Amino acid sequence: MAGEGSKKLWGGRFAGETDKLAEAFNNSLDFDRRLWREDLDGSRAHARMLARQGILTEEEARAILAGLDRIEKEIEAGAFPWRDEYEDVHMNVEARLTELVGEVGGKLHTARSRNDQVATDLRLWLRRSLAGIVEAQQELARVLVAEAERHLEPPVVLPGYTHLQRAQPVLLSHWFMAYYEMLSRDTTRVLDALFRMDESPLGAAALAGTSFPIDRHYTAEQLGFLEPMRNSLDAVASRDFVLEALSAIAIGQLTLSRLAEELVLYSSFEFGFVTLPDAFATGSSIMPQKKNPDIPELIRAKAGRAIGDLVTLLTVVKGLPLAYNKDLQEDKEPVFDAVDTYTSSLKLMAALLPGLTWHPEVTKRAATGGFALATDLADYLSRKGLPFRRAHAVVGRIVRKLQEEGRDLDDLDLDELRSFSELFDEDALALLSVEGSVSSRNVYGGTAPEQVRARIAEAKKELEEDGS
Amino acid sequence: MAGEGSKKLWGGRFAGETDKLAEAFNNSLDFDRRLWREDLDGSRAHARMLARQGILTEEEARAILAGLDRIEKEIEAGAFPWRDEYEDVHMNVEARLTELVGEVGGKLHTARSRNDQVATDLRLWLRRSLAGIVEAQQELARVLVAEAERHLEPPVVLPGYTHLQRAQPVLLSHWFMAYYEMLSRDTTRVLDALFRMDESPLGAAALAGTSFPIDRHYTAEQLGFLEPMRNSLDAVASRDFVLEALSAIAIGQLTLSRLAEELVLYSSFEFGFVTLPDAFATGSSIMPQKKNPDIPELIRAKAGRAIGDLVTLLTVVKGLPLAYNKDLQEDKEPVFDAVDTYTSSLKLMAALLPGLTWHPEVTKRAATGGFALATDLADYLSRKGLPFRRAHAVVGRIVRKLQEEGRDLDDLDLDELRSFSELFDEDALALLSVEGSVSSRNVYGGTAPEQVRARIAEAKKELEEDGS
Amino acid sequence: MAGEGSKKLWGGRFAGETDKLAEAFNNSLDFDRRLWREDLDGSRAHARMLARQGILTEEEARAILAGLDRIEKEIEAGAFPWRDEYEDVHMNVEARLTELVGEVGGKLHTARSRNDQVATDLRLWLRRSLAGIVEAQQELARVLVAEAERHLEPPVVLPGYTHLQRAQPVLLSHWFMAYYEMLSRDTTRVLDALFRMDESPLGAAALAGTSFPIDRHYTAEQLGFLEPMRNSLDAVASRDFVLEALSAIAIGQLTLSRLAEELVLYSSFEFGFVTLPDAFATGSSIMPQKKNPDIPELIRAKAGRAIGDLVTLLTVVKGLPLAYNKDLQEDKEPVFDAVDTYTSSLKLMAALLPGLTWHPEVTKRAATGGFALATDLADYLSRKGLPFRRAHAVVGRIVRKLQEEGRDLDDLDLDELRSFSELFDEDALALLSVEGSVSSRNVYGGTAPEQVRARIAEAKKELEEDGS
Amino acid sequence: MAGEGSKKLWGGRFAGETDKLAEAFNNSLDFDRRLWREDLDGSRAHARMLARQGILTEEEARAILAGLDRIEKEIEAGAFPWRDEYEDVHMNVEARLTELVGEVGGKLHTARSRNDQVATDLRLWLRRSLAGIVEAQQELARVLVAEAERHLEPPVVLPGYTHLQRAQPVLLSHWFMAYYEMLSRDTTRVLDALFRMDESPLGAAALAGTSFPIDRHYTAEQLGFLEPMRNSLDAVASRDFVLEALSAIAIGQLTLSRLAEELVLYSSFEFGFVTLPDAFATGSSIMPQKKNPDIPELIRAKAGRAIGDLVTLLTVVKGLPLAYNKDLQEDKEPVFDAVDTYTSSLKLMAALLPGLTWHPEVTKRAATGGFALATDLADYLSRKGLPFRRAHAVVGRIVRKLQEEGRDLDDLDLDELRSFSELFDEDALALLSVEGSVSSRNVYGGTAPEQVRARIAEAKKELEEDGS
Repeated sequence: MAGEGSKKLWGGRFAGETDKLAEAFNNSLDFDRRLWREDLDGSRAHARMLARQGILTEEEARAILAGLDRIEKEIEAGAFPWRDEYEDVHMNVEARLTELVGEVGGKLHTARSRNDQVATDLRLWLRRSLAGIVEAQQELARVLVAEAERHLEPPVVLPGYTHLQRAQPVLLSHWFMAYYEMLSRDTTRVLDALFRMDESPLGAAALAGTSFPIDRHYTAEQLGFLEPMRNSLDAVASRDFVLEALSAIAIGQLTLSRLAEELVLYSSFEFGFVTLPDAFATGSSIMPQKKNPDIPELIRAKAGRAIGDLVTLLTVVKGLPLAYNKDLQEDKEPVFDAVDTYTSSLKLMAALLPGLTWHPEVTKRAATGGFALATDLADYLSRKGLPFRRAHAVVGRIVRKLQEEGRDLDDLDLDELRSFSELFDEDALALLSVEGSVSSRNVYGGTAPEQVRARIAEAKKELEEDGS
Repeated sequence: MAGEGSKKLWGGRFAGETDKLAEAFNNSLDFDRRLWREDLDGSRAHARMLARQGILTEEEARAILAGLDRIEKEIEAGAFPWRDEYEDVHMNVEARLTELVGEVGGKLHTARSRNDQVATDLRLWLRRSLAGIVEAQQELARVLVAEAERHLEPPVVLPGYTHLQRAQPVLLSHWFMAYYEMLSRDTTRVLDALFRMDESPLGAAALAGTSFPIDRHYTAEQLGFLEPMRNSLDAVASRDFVLEALSAIAIGQLTLSRLAEELVLYSSFEFGFVTLPDAFATGSSIMPQKKNPDIPELIRAKAGRAIGDLVTLLTVVKGLPLAYNKDLQEDKEPVFDAVDTYTSSLKLMAALLPGLTWHPEVTKRAATGGFALATDLADYLSRKGLPFRRAHAVVGRIVRKLQEEGRDLDDLDLDELRSFSELFDEDALALLSVEGSVSSRNVYGGTAPEQVRARIAEAKKELEEDGS
Repeated sequence: MAGEGSKKLWGGRFAGETDKLAEAFNNSLDFDRRLWREDLDGSRAHARMLARQGILTEEEARAILAGLDRIEKEIEAGAFPWRDEYEDVHMNVEARLTELVGEVGGKLHTARSRNDQVATDLRLWLRRSLAGIVEAQQELARVLVAEAERHLEPPVVLPGYTHLQRAQPVLLSHWFMAYYEMLSRDTTRVLDALFRMDESPLGAAALAGTSFPIDRHYTAEQLGFLEPMRNSLDAVASRDFVLEALSAIAIGQLTLSRLAEELVLYSSFEFGFVTLPDAFATGSSIMPQKKNPDIPELIRAKAGRAIGDLVTLLTVVKGLPLAYNKDLQEDKEPVFDAVDTYTSSLKLMAALLPGLTWHPEVTKRAATGGFALATDLADYLSRKGLPFRRAHAVVGRIVRKLQEEGRDLDDLDLDELRSFSELFDEDALALLSVEGSVSSRNVYGGTAPEQVRARIAEAKKELEEDGS
Repeated sequence: MAGEGSKKLWGGRFAGETDKLAEAFNNSLDFDRRLWREDLDGSRAHARMLARQGILTEEEARAILAGLDRIEKEIEAGAFPWRDEYEDVHMNVEARLTELVGEVGGKLHTARSRNDQVATDLRLWLRRSLAGIVEAQQELARVLVAEAERHLEPPVVLPGYTHLQRAQPVLLSHWFMAYYEMLSRDTTRVLDALFRMDESPLGAAALAGTSFPIDRHYTAEQLGFLEPMRNSLDAVASRDFVLEALSAIAIGQLTLSRLAEELVLYSSFEFGFVTLPDAFATGSSIMPQKKNPDIPELIRAKAGRAIGDLVTLLTVVKGLPLAYNKDLQEDKEPVFDAVDTYTSSLKLMAALLPGLTWHPEVTKRAATGGFALATDLADYLSRKGLPFRRAHAVVGRIVRKLQEEGRDLDDLDLDELRSFSELFDEDALALLSVEGSVSSRNVYGGTAPEQVRARIAEAKKELEEDGS
């Protein structure tokens, strides 16, 4: 290529050099280097297929495969000469290959383009990463179920909240299992994304397929894909598989952000329900008494990050004509960031939860106070035949009076109760206990110990099956 | 309730009136009125179950069901007295019920809360709406396949683009089928969302379940849900089902935005590939010659809207503690808007595409010019044994020279070709035809007519199966 | 226009009718009707200018102006015949004008296009709306300062939080003034947006200016704009003025979301710092004791909406070529929604705050407990010469010991203090009071009453100046 | 601190070690290291002030300042021992200071907290970065004006587009100046953000101010801030200054995305208006003829990134209670990324534009064809007294007929013109030239050469003033 204007692998038609700033802007090596293993795997499959189809000789293929192995060792050893002038991981690998095995290295790119190559690499990487996420989700699921089980006997009761107002007592185990259900759906969402992306773009070449007699089913199989993609334009132009992964991650991170928010609240002095383990909290540089819930706060905040990553790529893809556009290079950093963020958050949550120290006497006191048992009284009247709306109004009046007098429900005796409604009988007083209230909600999905215990048993079976 | 501070259905404990501005801010009737049918269906199932369980008498249930029927007729006839002071659709229906059937109406709310009620209504509405979306997607899919088939014989060839530069010729049918593949995935994403949300929250009551002996499996079945949700806190607190629907819609709208962008480009004077039907274009108030692609432009723009709707709810849910918070009332407007936007966009695209007038001579000329056949030459040299990288460089030099001289590839004769590489032979010239180029890409998923025809046949079978 | 294919005002070149669904999709009358007053104002200024320049005769202008006045009355009276077939507010007004005043109505569109017309209308509307926002911001600012002043004497002390952990005591007045500072910046941001958009696009016509001898300075002046825009392409193509308004609103709504979050927290049973007025809270349909902070919750949630509105338009504008594209029609709904949302939120916050009932004894108790005075002890040691880092460590040990023993700082006597460091003297004990702690932070911007009082006085002057 | 549970600078009250994964998650050193220079500057100002106020002795201050100087040299030389166990840049600097100067290093943190320290550092960094952005904006502004001037004589005419349909001819210079106007507003937005953030949080300490007699006005002045912030809670809790910077950047990047989109379009084969310099384009790995507009594509795509960065922080801040929360640590990465993205994009655009090769004969041909002069005919009729609406309809009919016959406007002779309207005279034919059309739009802000020339002269003066 002596005398040519450009040393780039694509430089044939170019007369001028690339501007330095432009080169840096264009360069994706800093981040796409992370795809090196997938790039090697894709190249191996491609080389084997080329040989099998007679497009490469066996000897050529052997040389190329040996070169790729050597590159793998170099990278693992930190000895690979990454060079910015080769723009990206693909060109770096190919240039190095040619250095190592000679001109035959240039034959590897037969019947292939960077367009299908990068789409293949990213799908391979994301497939592996989402599988890692599912594993981390299941580990957290196991922790949630274990914590639910651990606090079942003796039962820990805390107030259930709506509008951050104490509403009705619930079991701590029930609360843990609520997050288990949410996380389970988050997991199936990731699995759906995984399944839908499990197709091979390799062989779509630049956009139209290739005139070489390649075997796309063979490379798909070699790489563990279910099948080759059915349309070459679609194969190189589409990033919905990344968008779906980013959506599933953002929604999953939101689940964690809610759990994190509750830990921040519950570990405040005002709630006092739980103490974070020292290993997951930090102090203040100025206030010696502080024990800050940094990890939950960061997990909460990182929902912003996951959402931002999703918005980035949604906006990039909007209105892009087919097929490949350079804009799509911007798909990698957000998805790398989102995968890292969510994976760490899952692991930290799984590590943190078993170290929490719950304070059952505090949560029980909270569950009793604040008129959290008022619904039980209204239900009582309703069972005695008063239409629910009227029962609700009667108990509303009781609450208002007690509040004005600075009293709570357990200050009531039967006489006073009956002054509000003659339907009240001795058994109404029995309702005014946290345990009674919780046990009474013995409906499928409800917070009664019987229901929660059954669900825990079921969940353990689900997790065993997934894990096997 | 005479003498009470508030006329609200929940007013028992309140001494003061609600501020007017606050009432308007709080009011959701303007938009949640749209859920009236689902609210009636949910109430019917609940009433029937209450009777079946002996919580209501048969007579009470009959009265309530008759009242609900009458309300349905009133609403359908536009005769229902919607009243802002009742905040939302649920309270409006209940208040009217009590007017119609007397105090027994107040018994309908036994063992139920607005929290599980609204979650049920929204799932019912979204289930129906997503089913409508799937239908509209399949109609568009049928149109895409029909258009692909229609342009297969004689084959219409247009340039495939990368970076909006002419890259390689492709069949128009192949281009249509690329969108078919994209749309198919968009459809399975909606179906996955549908499946995952197909659970009944009804019976979770406020957040903890209820002390009445209700049958949640029965109501779930009555409402056509697969099963009741397994955790009452989760049932009232989670909106991931809405977020997933919004994600699937945003990704789907992006697919349409890309197709719309290409129609805007292709119908410009500069491309001139296609003419929009008058019925889907508009004129200018000042420039008499203008024929503006308003519909594609709006479909493109509405990707912004779909993304905005998704961001709205993602942000709302971030960091919300369990269980219900008023913030969740903000889930409805974005999802109503996104469903309407995407449904209309799908229908318009399906109506518009068959009316397009393609200009095959223009697209063919474009596919020939701009050196779109250069890859074929490079592949030729590569097949003759030149490593692809060197073949690429040789053809790059040919292109540069021709460009400098204002010529194109079909100006070349064999002598000139051989001046660049002695590997060129007579058969190289034959490559320089659009038809030859397209046919040569005869690989699975490639643009060769044989491949595209096979895929169309397959797709037609897929659509028949879905439609049956 | 008999025999023409289309009745549209732009229908000359069109042979076919517009598709009904397309027409509905395209139609903006539902929302842009809101611009009717601005549209009339713009048309009046344009008509007067046309007459002044001799483009219309005086008589023609008089007829047009009279027609516009009559349209104004019709609209105000609800008697204007809005017609969907005229697409938007502009065409509706013009069509009605021609009905009222005859063919001369068609002369109003001389030297004007819908492109500059809608840009003018939207700037006029937004100018007025942002002015309304500034007014609502200042009303809230006055409330914040008044509340700060009201709680200064006797001073109400509450814990300042970091990481939602009690950190150091602060004055409630100081807390109110923090929001005053935040809101002040939010206001100047809106004012900057207002100033930057205060230019007239009118006369840019479709995109290039016009060949009629119009006077753009005159219309700009008539409409109260500072000057005409300097480039016709920019005038019709740019929506940065809307984006900036949406940004300012989103940031402003975030400020309110933080205040709202604190009200939700402070009015919970666990904090118990404040009681919301009944007029701004609601009850539960099932739990008679509930008093839910709906208004703060909604204000918090509506930050999601403001962010979504911003994202919508950011995405729409991305990558749009000059000049006008139909995509820009999507600018109105998000900005209408954002303006309404923020304006209501400001007004509600201003109405709600004075009705809060604070509980000073509760906040003081909270400010004392939780080791919130530990920093004061560390500062004490530091003043005695111990490097701050060592002082911090000493007090950290004190806190750990007390916590293990279930005690708080005010349980300490001098002997015990000195067992940790001999630098402690009698005066250290005096530090352990909330009042002392607050007063000691007597630095500019600090929470000492002297500082807060001075700032309140200053702020009152600022508000007087703004209001005059 | 031997025997303590933790080696952290805040470890006094902690018994357990921090979890390794938590430590990594918590760690911000990777990114906040970038603030080292600002951290040193802030520390110097603080140390000098402490000495001036007698809180440190002169000798202590000298030792500290010498240590800080030495740290600066170490960092610049790459010799600074960054250590992950010290979490962030602030702790690294402080720990190293103590190593270098002994225990007196621990006195630097007197009357300061990481909360006010990081807020100060970030403001300093952002002030400097936004100033850099303004410089890059002005460089691009100069380029735009220079290009506008360069193409003024002889005038280059291209079609102005609306809806990507040819609308009316405009000067290339006018097009350049449109971007100049847009960029000017983008610049004033950044300047407004700069001005509003120019306040010092230093001295707010943790959140309440400090009990040491510090002088916040002195440190503010030392650091070049206009004044100290007026409320300590606000000073540590607010990030609106970052949000405003992110908004200004996102809007600015959108302007560039539109310019980039037009370059992508104009450099396509179909438009053929302009050739990109080789230095700013790249080739294809498979298609030898390709010259891809990578840089404009990336600039366009990076609008997604800027929007994503903004959304990230908007979401993080939503609903955060005062004062500092760990969530705010997530402010840095998005703003670093957005600043880098926008700065590079500005510089690249400024470097790229002068290297463009425009093809005036192509643009002129395009400006003539496609009935781009139809408005001129309608205006002609309107000047002859026909109401504009009727004139528009007449010309619409002309266009329709010509299109059906495959002709263009310049094929018309007077007879044919008069067959549409008798108002046409000889002078109508003269209108059908691109130059005449452009010159006729001689209104303020219009595309006539006279107007554009005047605006260029004005703009050059504006730039001189800004640059002086």
